[in-house]
Amino acid sequence: MTISVSSKPILDVLAGRRQTVPPVWLMRQAGRYLPEYRKLREQAGSFLDLCLTPAMAAEVTLQPVRRFGFDGAILFSDILVVPYALGQEVTFTVGEGPQLSPLIGSGELAGLKPRIDLSLLAPVFETIALVRAQLPAATTLLGFCGAPWTVATYMVAGRGTSDQMPARLMAYRDPQAFGRLIDLLVDASVDYLAEQCKAGVDAVQIFDTWAGVLPPAEFSRWCIEPTRRIVEALRRRIPAAKVIGFPRGAATNVPRYVDEVAVDAVGLDWMVEHVYAREHIQSRRPVQGNLDPQVLVAGGAALDRAVDAVLAAFADGPFIFNLGHGILPDTPIAHVERMLARVRDVQH
Amino acid sequence: MTISVSSKPILDVLAGRRQTVPPVWLMRQAGRYLPEYRKLREQAGSFLDLCLTPAMAAEVTLQPVRRFGFDGAILFSDILVVPYALGQEVTFTVGEGPQLSPLIGSGELAGLKPRIDLSLLAPVFETIALVRAQLPAATTLLGFCGAPWTVATYMVAGRGTSDQMPARLMAYRDPQAFGRLIDLLVDASVDYLAEQCKAGVDAVQIFDTWAGVLPPAEFSRWCIEPTRRIVEALRRRIPAAKVIGFPRGAATNVPRYVDEVAVDAVGLDWMVEHVYAREHIQSRRPVQGNLDPQVLVAGGAALDRAVDAVLAAFADGPFIFNLGHGILPDTPIAHVERMLARVRDVQH
Repeated sequence: MTISVSSKPILDVLAGRRQTVPPVWLMRQAGRYLPEYRKLREQAGSFLDLCLTPAMAAEVTLQPVRRFGFDGAILFSDILVVPYALGQEVTFTVGEGPQLSPLIGSGELAGLKPRIDLSLLAPVFETIALVRAQLPAATTLLGFCGAPWTVATYMVAGRGTSDQMPARLMAYRDPQAFGRLIDLLVDASVDYLAEQCKAGVDAVQIFDTWAGVLPPAEFSRWCIEPTRRIVEALRRRIPAAKVIGFPRGAATNVPRYVDEVAVDAVGLDWMVEHVYAREHIQSRRPVQGNLDPQVLVAGGAALDRAVDAVLAAFADGPFIFNLGHGILPDTPIAHVERMLARVRDVQH
Repeated sequence: MTISVSSKPILDVLAGRRQTVPPVWLMRQAGRYLPEYRKLREQAGSFLDLCLTPAMAAEVTLQPVRRFGFDGAILFSDILVVPYALGQEVTFTVGEGPQLSPLIGSGELAGLKPRIDLSLLAPVFETIALVRAQLPAATTLLGFCGAPWTVATYMVAGRGTSDQMPARLMAYRDPQAFGRLIDLLVDASVDYLAEQCKAGVDAVQIFDTWAGVLPPAEFSRWCIEPTRRIVEALRRRIPAAKVIGFPRGAATNVPRYVDEVAVDAVGLDWMVEHVYAREHIQSRRPVQGNLDPQVLVAGGAALDRAVDAVLAAFADGPFIFNLGHGILPDTPIAHVERMLARVRDVQH
């Protein structure tokens, strides 16, 4: 057993050092399940306004850290600020999810800027600086972006769809045009993540929420390869940049992702089999995850068993405790507290 | 290489014998992408009426076999006829998917019969007899049912939902009540499948469309265990029964499924990595699949490459060519023909 003393346990895990008590944060930990978030949300205008108003976005980012003492704070934002900063119309309608002017049928990449306009995202970098100034020294500040494939699926369809079929169809029918969109997103992601690092984040996560809908060859082309290019280009600009990759649902394709993309850790969804994940993923790279967000809603004995199963599977190695996807809006606060107590009380 | 001469190539594969040219059928091959189906559909009443009118259901079942010469015919029906025959209200609204009176909030299993009423499904067995009488001798007639987990997700939520959260929540919160629903569905499935076998199907497929949303322990409890019980009980009644299992999306959990459930073959979705599927699934059992339905919509060079990749991965062993999920309504007929020609022309 390696015992390491560090000011930031999450960064220690990203460096490959197992922690006696695994550090914890939750995807979407700043959000609707928190009464203090819902109160502030009422005072904000649109969701995009909230993301792009530094004082409010910083406050929302800090809320769950204050309440639960999480080991990580993740910037409150959305993966669709990148299409916004590329000139695509993006709106968030309450209860309906995001809506974009779909690229399909409007001519390939028509109306998009040739490069991301970071001045439109200046409030994000200001938010990072504000959070940084208020964050406890042991808390890791995480930035993020969506992976090109996942962002492209929304840009093409204009919304979330079942299995993201419009983007899959475009990728098959016109791989050249789709490739140009992916290339644009690779460059935009590098610019955006590098600026987040300069503004003060300790690490970034690349969310590939829709990685799981692609067959192996398409996964290589549209998930692995663009993400590999982002990580390499980011490290050329910010050599110390730390990156967590999260190819959700990629399952049997994850080992290839880990072999080819130089991420510091990989996020696991809640469906992956534990022995497989230990032997084929955690053996190669630190892992983060993977409690079923739905069992955190359910609570009770089912929650305890599920927390124990995740710890039994992964806590013997370099490991960050998290959910297998974002926390659900109807999650009771008491269940988050119960989960945290259980993770932090375990004896390894 | 084993060369076998049989009147039914699909049954040969289910017996573990590789075919020189892999037999082919497509999930949902009787359906909206066929003009002859759309024409007949206009004359029928509701979708459920169509399923339960033997002359029409038989005609629809036979249409794709006549047009394409598929090696298998799958009974035209729906997995939700089982809840219907258990007394749950089931309606199919055009363009909206199925709707059931949800079990959630209505008291556990309230209003359901204690055992499936097979008399309500008499038209299904009559359909099987009609199809049987008209089917070429080499064509395998396939019956089917939904796996208990997948059927339960619809029964609990009343409809399809994102990640089938209502059933997952019920399974966590009240595993006893949920277990009683699963037990009811296990018994109903055995009764229903046994009657299909008696009516004349050559094999049955158990569709677990939503197997992929469960964590490993829940997958064992709600997918593997009930399906294992169905297959064992079915074989006690019909010793020669042939069964294909299709735990869609189960990925890293599939090898455990294959080890514990005595299916004759396992269906693969389009996302599974090919080397993994060969080494950990096809090494244990004949496989069926797994072309991305979306590439069949796209056509062209992408389709050719994808067909070749599936053949290269699996055609060296016992293998039935199929899609990785149901054919999509906007699939062009010409693409199906192109795919078939490519599968049947390959030299192994």
